[in-house]
Amino acid sequence: MSTPTLTLSDDRLLPREPSALAAAREIYRSTKGLPIISPHGHVPVSWIADDIAFTDPTSLLITPDHYVNRLLHANGVDLEDLGVGRTMNEEDSRRAFRILCEHWRDFAGTAMRYWLVDQLVGIFGVTERPSGETADRIYDSISERIAQPDFRPRALMDAFNIAFIATTDDPCDDLDDHARLAADKTFNRRVAPTFRPDKYLEPAAEGWTDLLAKLSEVSGCDATTLDGFTAAMESRRAYFKDHGASSSDHSHRDLGTVILDHDRAAKIFADSVAGRATVEEMTLLRRHLFTDQARMASEDGLTMTVHPAVHRNHDTTAFRRFGADIGSDVPVALEAVDSLHPLLDRFGNTDLKLVIFTIDETLYSREIAPLAGWYRSLYIGVPWWFIDAPNSVMRFKHAVTEMAGFSRVSGMIDDTRAFCSIPARHDMSRRLDAAHLAELVVLGRIDLDEAVEIAHRLVVEQPTRVFGL
Amino acid sequence: MSTPTLTLSDDRLLPREPSALAAAREIYRSTKGLPIISPHGHVPVSWIADDIAFTDPTSLLITPDHYVNRLLHANGVDLEDLGVGRTMNEEDSRRAFRILCEHWRDFAGTAMRYWLVDQLVGIFGVTERPSGETADRIYDSISERIAQPDFRPRALMDAFNIAFIATTDDPCDDLDDHARLAADKTFNRRVAPTFRPDKYLEPAAEGWTDLLAKLSEVSGCDATTLDGFTAAMESRRAYFKDHGASSSDHSHRDLGTVILDHDRAAKIFADSVAGRATVEEMTLLRRHLFTDQARMASEDGLTMTVHPAVHRNHDTTAFRRFGADIGSDVPVALEAVDSLHPLLDRFGNTDLKLVIFTIDETLYSREIAPLAGWYRSLYIGVPWWFIDAPNSVMRFKHAVTEMAGFSRVSGMIDDTRAFCSIPARHDMSRRLDAAHLAELVVLGRIDLDEAVEIAHRLVVEQPTRVFGL
Amino acid sequence: MSTPTLTLSDDRLLPREPSALAAAREIYRSTKGLPIISPHGHVPVSWIADDIAFTDPTSLLITPDHYVNRLLHANGVDLEDLGVGRTMNEEDSRRAFRILCEHWRDFAGTAMRYWLVDQLVGIFGVTERPSGETADRIYDSISERIAQPDFRPRALMDAFNIAFIATTDDPCDDLDDHARLAADKTFNRRVAPTFRPDKYLEPAAEGWTDLLAKLSEVSGCDATTLDGFTAAMESRRAYFKDHGASSSDHSHRDLGTVILDHDRAAKIFADSVAGRATVEEMTLLRRHLFTDQARMASEDGLTMTVHPAVHRNHDTTAFRRFGADIGSDVPVALEAVDSLHPLLDRFGNTDLKLVIFTIDETLYSREIAPLAGWYRSLYIGVPWWFIDAPNSVMRFKHAVTEMAGFSRVSGMIDDTRAFCSIPARHDMSRRLDAAHLAELVVLGRIDLDEAVEIAHRLVVEQPTRVFGL
Repeated sequence: MSTPTLTLSDDRLLPREPSALAAAREIYRSTKGLPIISPHGHVPVSWIADDIAFTDPTSLLITPDHYVNRLLHANGVDLEDLGVGRTMNEEDSRRAFRILCEHWRDFAGTAMRYWLVDQLVGIFGVTERPSGETADRIYDSISERIAQPDFRPRALMDAFNIAFIATTDDPCDDLDDHARLAADKTFNRRVAPTFRPDKYLEPAAEGWTDLLAKLSEVSGCDATTLDGFTAAMESRRAYFKDHGASSSDHSHRDLGTVILDHDRAAKIFADSVAGRATVEEMTLLRRHLFTDQARMASEDGLTMTVHPAVHRNHDTTAFRRFGADIGSDVPVALEAVDSLHPLLDRFGNTDLKLVIFTIDETLYSREIAPLAGWYRSLYIGVPWWFIDAPNSVMRFKHAVTEMAGFSRVSGMIDDTRAFCSIPARHDMSRRLDAAHLAELVVLGRIDLDEAVEIAHRLVVEQPTRVFGL
Repeated sequence: MSTPTLTLSDDRLLPREPSALAAAREIYRSTKGLPIISPHGHVPVSWIADDIAFTDPTSLLITPDHYVNRLLHANGVDLEDLGVGRTMNEEDSRRAFRILCEHWRDFAGTAMRYWLVDQLVGIFGVTERPSGETADRIYDSISERIAQPDFRPRALMDAFNIAFIATTDDPCDDLDDHARLAADKTFNRRVAPTFRPDKYLEPAAEGWTDLLAKLSEVSGCDATTLDGFTAAMESRRAYFKDHGASSSDHSHRDLGTVILDHDRAAKIFADSVAGRATVEEMTLLRRHLFTDQARMASEDGLTMTVHPAVHRNHDTTAFRRFGADIGSDVPVALEAVDSLHPLLDRFGNTDLKLVIFTIDETLYSREIAPLAGWYRSLYIGVPWWFIDAPNSVMRFKHAVTEMAGFSRVSGMIDDTRAFCSIPARHDMSRRLDAAHLAELVVLGRIDLDEAVEIAHRLVVEQPTRVFGL
Repeated sequence: MSTPTLTLSDDRLLPREPSALAAAREIYRSTKGLPIISPHGHVPVSWIADDIAFTDPTSLLITPDHYVNRLLHANGVDLEDLGVGRTMNEEDSRRAFRILCEHWRDFAGTAMRYWLVDQLVGIFGVTERPSGETADRIYDSISERIAQPDFRPRALMDAFNIAFIATTDDPCDDLDDHARLAADKTFNRRVAPTFRPDKYLEPAAEGWTDLLAKLSEVSGCDATTLDGFTAAMESRRAYFKDHGASSSDHSHRDLGTVILDHDRAAKIFADSVAGRATVEEMTLLRRHLFTDQARMASEDGLTMTVHPAVHRNHDTTAFRRFGADIGSDVPVALEAVDSLHPLLDRFGNTDLKLVIFTIDETLYSREIAPLAGWYRSLYIGVPWWFIDAPNSVMRFKHAVTEMAGFSRVSGMIDDTRAFCSIPARHDMSRRLDAAHLAELVVLGRIDLDEAVEIAHRLVVEQPTRVFGL
């Protein structure tokens, strides 16, 4: 018996019913060639700045992708065998790749599988279904492919047609790599930093005062007082903006906001620095500092993206062994209407642009769409993380569109560190746009020419406007 | 290039797959001509009593419709430019209409757009797609149409085939307009008042004691004591019933119910009147008074409709400028099982008829359908407000039908003040009934003759029975 | 006019679109003949041990099925008329059956109707639609059928092709019926007990100390101290395992877990026995004792199934009249991520096998799938109870598969006491598997041969592995 093949259907994710399929194809055809705008993600800037060559299939496709790793872990694989937290030699790498191939069936139906197939076939030309038997051949063919000069990050940015990509950076980062790229006349795509101040806003987190010390040093302001901290933050945001940033990114456990009066906030700040604030006071201060980022954003124009409601490092044994971001983060329930009230009541109709993402789907129709259907500053973030997957995305579209239409959404955010998956993710998004719009067409709710215009709007206009590009 | 057209597909909202479409058409055909029963809404009785002429397209279609206004607001339009909180001259009105047309694309995919198209094409004969260019022409053609004598409210009630419509009224209202209509031999459709006592049941709300004074005066009972208040409420409910009311309507933030012993309730009532009750006590009293409405309903037969879980006037700046009901109300999470326990445990299997609406979709399968599948007094309210939209309605049908069937639902409630949208809303509901039932037919779960019978049941029998018509 | 017929469509629940239907048929064909594995349910072991003859249609199909009874109750039927809480003569039984038939239309679209049709047509050969007119004829034809020798439970197990079935048993049960069955050489199907310790773990529940006394007696350990209780539990679990048990079953209101230090737990245990522990302490102890069951399970290998978040006996009047399990249990909201943290942090990657069921659908994508996509010990329980119904099951599949794939699910659990509905439920599950997998095939996400392999996996491999069969 011959080895099963691996193929990509031209019509993948599009509806089957003939009238819907015809409409979906026409809509998809109109956006598939458009450049990719990626306003938030985690690709390291150094990859592009130094145009580094990728070394092997495993470190490119497996080790950094905790979506892939976590499901292998659940199926009994040790993260160490996948390269997490250690260096791998050629044999290790080949073995890790074989583990993935042997578990291929465990990925059936998942979002990870969808992206992997798209990359294996579309980028690497693989034609055999992964399995223990085909693992080595596939490994070899990818290895050969990534050794080519046209597989360097900059060449791939051209091949993938990525017009804009944002990295994620510490407020104290010097952004030298970004400056270098911007100054490079031979490079004409845009790579922007993103201001990520989370840990500086968490007085209760370990090491907070060390961060303040670092912030003081970098900014030249005394960040150990509220006023100095505020000045430092404003200064670093300006520095990021000067280096091309279009947004800041935020991820706290809840969406709580509050505007404390200045003296109260200053007092809690001082007490937090001195280690004598209560947990409740530090939570209050964190919410105040977060809300103050919205105030700054309403002034300096950096769009705020907010990714809340994650219980980080749920598996503490794994966290102690491998550190953060290895796959044991899990979502928790979220509340937005009351939490965001202080912020929206003050800044909801200003120049602020605030994009809220959720992994608690219950918020789609109950809170997010109704809020974004009123407040000018609030945009609906697309499905993110575990729910950045075809069925989840369709649930999202069905839940928010009827209330808020297409003018209140952010457009696609890939939020990924898996560089080669970027075109697959944006293509998936465009296919799902087409499927959804085709459905509206065949149900008599919009005309086909409108659908084509909306598809373009979602890929180009909305991200351009929401991120001020 | 010619102007894009505006059309209504005969098969809108019906499924495309041929066997499902054939079934859906047959089911829809059987209900499309049935009279409209509208047991809860907000059309002012004076429109019908005085058979007033509508003055212009904007005050008819835009100004009073906060669904439309809110999305325009989110897209940067000032509510004042839409006529909210002020009077408009002809030029203002024309300009407001142009704003809507210029934002036509922002409504694509929304429920508001669906209703607008249905009205524009179906009632006003518009054939061009709204845009800045076509706005004036469309405005003129609607103006011409509403100036005709057959466009007066009473003629429209005939044209729309509205057999029954309920208004919403203050307990102290004298209901003179209703009495006048009932006495009018030339008018043979039924218009009923609805008892809406919310603010009288909220001891913590501003102006409560003023309301008690007014209630005392109107009822002739001393409503400043619990016993007097109860007598006054019973008296006003009887007055409403004598004037044709079939239901009372309620909207508090939560569904909390409690039955306090008489002396405790009387004490808190007295303390609330005297301004010395705590917030907790006043919440308890509100829940007690609400539960006592259920007791009265079990005796006098007025059906209770309950629309909970809304954060009213979320945007306080807009509230201060324009007042309530202008579009910044947003839903919040809801709990029903424990909240309703005291009420259902006492009245859940009596003659009480209680219809619960929710905008927190999580309740559909978790709480509402399971409760209504046991308690005889509890009926499932249809999707309401933001989720009164095609996809949301289908989610609702899929979530509740498998547990509770079709005998436990209220039938369509339009809950609207947009008079001309009433036929569009009921037609949408009948199309979605047809789509859902056709799906059950093609999946082999019911026969087509049963589907036709159920469609009739949903449009005629359920509202007739649930509202005692 | 002729009586409407009752039929079973060969393609029921399968998609209509031709390419999806073709795939679904092929997938379904591959699993429809496979033996049934039923790892958790409520069929009384005595039925099988004594191979008792069923007496009449009502006591077989109506009286014990609180899904059926509850919807009849909501439609005004007295449970007593259905045989609940009393003995019925032939005329009573016939009358109860007529009540069901007269309410046939109230079941349209429900899961109960789906199972009933499957049984009536598939097992009893009924060809007429139930109604007041046909009730007696249908009653007679079922009566005739169940009087045949091939309708005894053991013959039915053969006819239904049930390879494995589990009952639910008290920890103090002597399991004599199970022993007798196991020793019976003429019976070659497997019937296993299930360890159900709930009420022994609830120090706050009435009669807890009586249970401890009984447990002490049966186990020979002094269960009135923590250490004795632990020894008794371990001993009874071992006894169950010796009698073929593969799992324990648990249903508390929440999923709270905690690992107290031994002395603290022992102190609260003693205080609870003495009646001087607070409610909070007893809740803490209950969570500790539940978590300790996970510890035991990680050692003895009994799989834990957990069915949380039910408000039992919501209608207290009905509870006082008829007792528990008569249909007034309703679901409540659930939280898993924080609640399960202590348990998963300690045992989440051990040999423990923990299957979580939920009726709060919000957990599917937010908590259950993300947790099971990381922890090796955690499996996703299939839709259960009110949501064990076609549309609910599809929502479940869409929500969890994209994150966790097919390796992290338990496979079908029928959880029923309605013996004759078992093949209908498992057949429904296989049809829905086929529908879901066919959808993945036509959307280009998996190949057809993979779909066939996964369908087999869901019916055979997953339950075999998860329940250690």
